[in-house]
Formats: sequence, C-alpha cells, structure tokens
Amino acid sequence: MNDEHISSAFDRDLETVQALIMKMGGLVEEAIMNAAISLDTRDEELAEKVRAGDRVIDDLEEQIDQETARTIALRAPTAIDLRVILTVMKIASNLERIGDYAKNMAKRTTVLAQMTPITGATSSLRRMARETERMLRDVLDAYIQRDAALAREVIQRDHDVDQMYNALFREFLTFMMEDPRNITPCMHLHFIAKNTERMGDHVTNIAEQVVYLVTGTMPEDNRPKSDKTSLDPKVSPQVGA
Amino acid sequence: MNDEHISSAFDRDLETVQALIMKMGGLVEEAIMNAAISLDTRDEELAEKVRAGDRVIDDLEEQIDQETARTIALRAPTAIDLRVILTVMKIASNLERIGDYAKNMAKRTTVLAQMTPITGATSSLRRMARETERMLRDVLDAYIQRDAALAREVIQRDHDVDQMYNALFREFLTFMMEDPRNITPCMHLHFIAKNTERMGDHVTNIAEQVVYLVTGTMPEDNRPKSDKTSLDPKVSPQVGA
Repeated sequence: MNDEHISSAFDRDLETVQALIMKMGGLVEEAIMNAAISLDTRDEELAEKVRAGDRVIDDLEEQIDQETARTIALRAPTAIDLRVILTVMKIASNLERIGDYAKNMAKRTTVLAQMTPITGATSSLRRMARETERMLRDVLDAYIQRDAALAREVIQRDHDVDQMYNALFREFLTFMMEDPRNITPCMHLHFIAKNTERMGDHVTNIAEQVVYLVTGTMPEDNRPKSDKTSLDPKVSPQVGA
Repeated sequence: MNDEHISSAFDRDLETVQALIMKMGGLVEEAIMNAAISLDTRDEELAEKVRAGDRVIDDLEEQIDQETARTIALRAPTAIDLRVILTVMKIASNLERIGDYAKNMAKRTTVLAQMTPITGATSSLRRMARETERMLRDVLDAYIQRDAALAREVIQRDHDVDQMYNALFREFLTFMMEDPRNITPCMHLHFIAKNTERMGDHVTNIAEQVVYLVTGTMPEDNRPKSDKTSLDPKVSPQVGA
C-alpha cells in the first residue's frame, strides 16, 4: 500500500474487506487445530463443531466476494488498489479451500473413532496440522504488514510440511503391510495427511499472492516440490514391483 | 449477457479473455484424457507430454488474470459486466487446478509403470476421467451459451463421478487385503481416483459460477455429496474395527 495516499472511500472499503479476511482467517486457523485435536483425542463433539463451523467460513467467502465486487463497481480502482482488491478475492478463495480440508478431516474423526488406533499417527498429524496453522497465521500477518520477506519464509516452510507428509506416507505403507486390519484406518489417515499437505499448498498460494501484491511479481521456482511420493517408485524399501 | 447492449470496448476485451478461457479449457480437457490414457496404456512419453504441457496452462491463467485486471482498470465495469469478468477469473482458477490434477496423474504413470498392474483399475480410472472431461466440455459450452440448465445438469452428473470413485475405493481396499504387494500400487491408484473425483468438484465449481452468472444466485444444496468414504465407517464389509 502507498502510505502517502490519503484515506479515501476505497481505503475504507478495503478495511471492511480486510476485517472480513482476518475474521475468516481466524476461523480457518481454529478449524485446522480443532479438527486435528478432535482426531487425536477422538472427540466427536469437537469434530461436529468443526463441520458445522465450515458453513460460517463459506458464508464469509461469499460476503468477501460481494464486498470486493461492490468496491470495484463503486470505486473503479486501478493499479495497486485493483491489485490489492483482486488479491483479497484470491486469499478468500484459498482460505475457503483450507476450511474445506479441515471439515473433511473432522468428518473422518467419526469414522476413525470406531477403528483400532494406529500408534503415533494422529499425534504426527496433529503436529503437521499445527505447523500448517502457524504458517497460515504468519502469512496473514505478512499480508496485513505487506511483508514479502515473511511471505517468502512461509513458502520455504511448506517444505517441512511436505517432509512430514512423505514420512507419514511411508509409515502408513509399513503399517498396512504388517497387518491387513490396518489397511482401512491407514487409508483414512493417509487422506488426512494428504489433505493437510494440500492445506500447506494453499497457504503457499496465499504467500505467493502476498509476494505478488508487495513486489508486483510472482515468486518463481523457489516453491518447494510438494509430494515426493508421485516421483519416487521406491516409496517403501519393503515393496517390490 | 444482455444482447441489447451494443458492442463496446468492454465486449471486445471480454471476447479476448473468453478466447483465452476456451483455449485453456481445451488444453485442460486434453490433459485429462492424455493423463488417463498414458496411465492406462503405460505410455510414459505421453505422460511426459502432459507434465510439460501444464506450464502452458499455468501461463494462460496468469495471462487471463492480467487481462481481467486490465479490463477492470480500463473499463470500470459494473453490474452484470463486472459479474462476468470476475466469473472468468474464477473459472480460470478452477481450470488451473484441474490441470494440476491431470499433471499429478501423469506423474504417477511413471511410478505405476514399474509395478504389477492392478486388473481393471486403470481402465476404470480412464472411464472416470472421460466422464469428467465430458462434464468440463459441457460446462464450458454452458458458459459460452449462458445456459444455466446445462450447468445444473453438469452439477448433477458429478454424482456419477463420485459413485465411480466410491466403487473404486472399495475395490482398492479389497485388492490390498488380498495381497500386500498390491498395497503400494493401490495407494497410488487411489490417489489418482481421488484426484479425478476432485477434478469433478472443480468442474462443479465452474458450473455453479455459470448458474450464478446467468441467474444472479448460487445453486444451493443441490450439489451432490462428493466423497461417501468419509462418512461411512464400514467402507468395506471385510474390515472389522
């Protein structure tokens, strides 16, 4: 943002939309952690709260879309102002997707609560979710502060989430091969791991938008490769052709 | 679109952007089918073509984003014109995601080509991909024709893709329980199935945008529930707690 330009009708509109974004971001952060906790502690009531709460997140996205459209129509922003307002729409869309993944995680709590626990898996998933939630918090800070350096740091941290996912993938394969009764719970846990890894990708999308907003160019090629399992034929040493 | 309003600078800009959307849509349709064919026929060269082609799809999204921003800045559209131009951005974003899933499918071709084939699975996946590709073609038609009825039909057809996915999920569980050597290939195939199901969700997002564009309201609640596996504790009758 250009600090020199005086507070205008556009700025006031933008503040309204940004307040909605921060509210939405806060709810999504909460959803990620509550979904992971409900899974780890088999708390079906908390899982139900996450599922019900997704509606509010979806409504906020619609409200943000309407507000941004109204602002564009009324204020006819150009240059940097237009870039800001279009970025807001993209951030909202990414937040909505992250919320969906959290809801999906919470749904599987109910299913997994009825199965034999897989030792250590849900606490690993909780750590992975916590890291993703922290990345999200930092990227929203980066957005508000217009801090491209922080946004770039978040992009690099996505690598850690990807590594956690790759480690879990191998763990699940081992569990399934050890005992066929582990296959069904591991399929569900694997889904959750993959979805958490995707949440990280969406946080990275937001970080890229922040970098673009501040610098005017998208950060190219420094985005860490996400899912190694699609490239590595030897996903587990125990597995033959 | 309002047929009465005369061809304006905005209309010409919109035509440019729509031509880009159709080009992008065509490439994404091709990517879906080529990814599925490469998987089914173990054609690693074709898979490589799909992977390389995703770059072009990504570039088109960026070009569309820039064109829409330019149009908004220059023409200051309001009401229906603004709705159209913002819808275009959302469609491009969904197309980009579908392209990503196709690329991911193609990546796994290389991995799976080195493993024992799972009977029937890749041809089932190919059918699922073909149905998704047809839905995409129809929804792009619905967009160009401003045909809300066709868009609503596409939303309903997503149900078929979801059912194909649910059937495959059960099949993969059975294969894995029959023989631990099937676990790794089935994990990859399951990913592909899930990603194809997600492609269908993105086509549905586009269809919802088309309905919104034509009618001014989002189609609520008639969207079929996607993934039954997260709700059903008995994903396979053979599996105990």
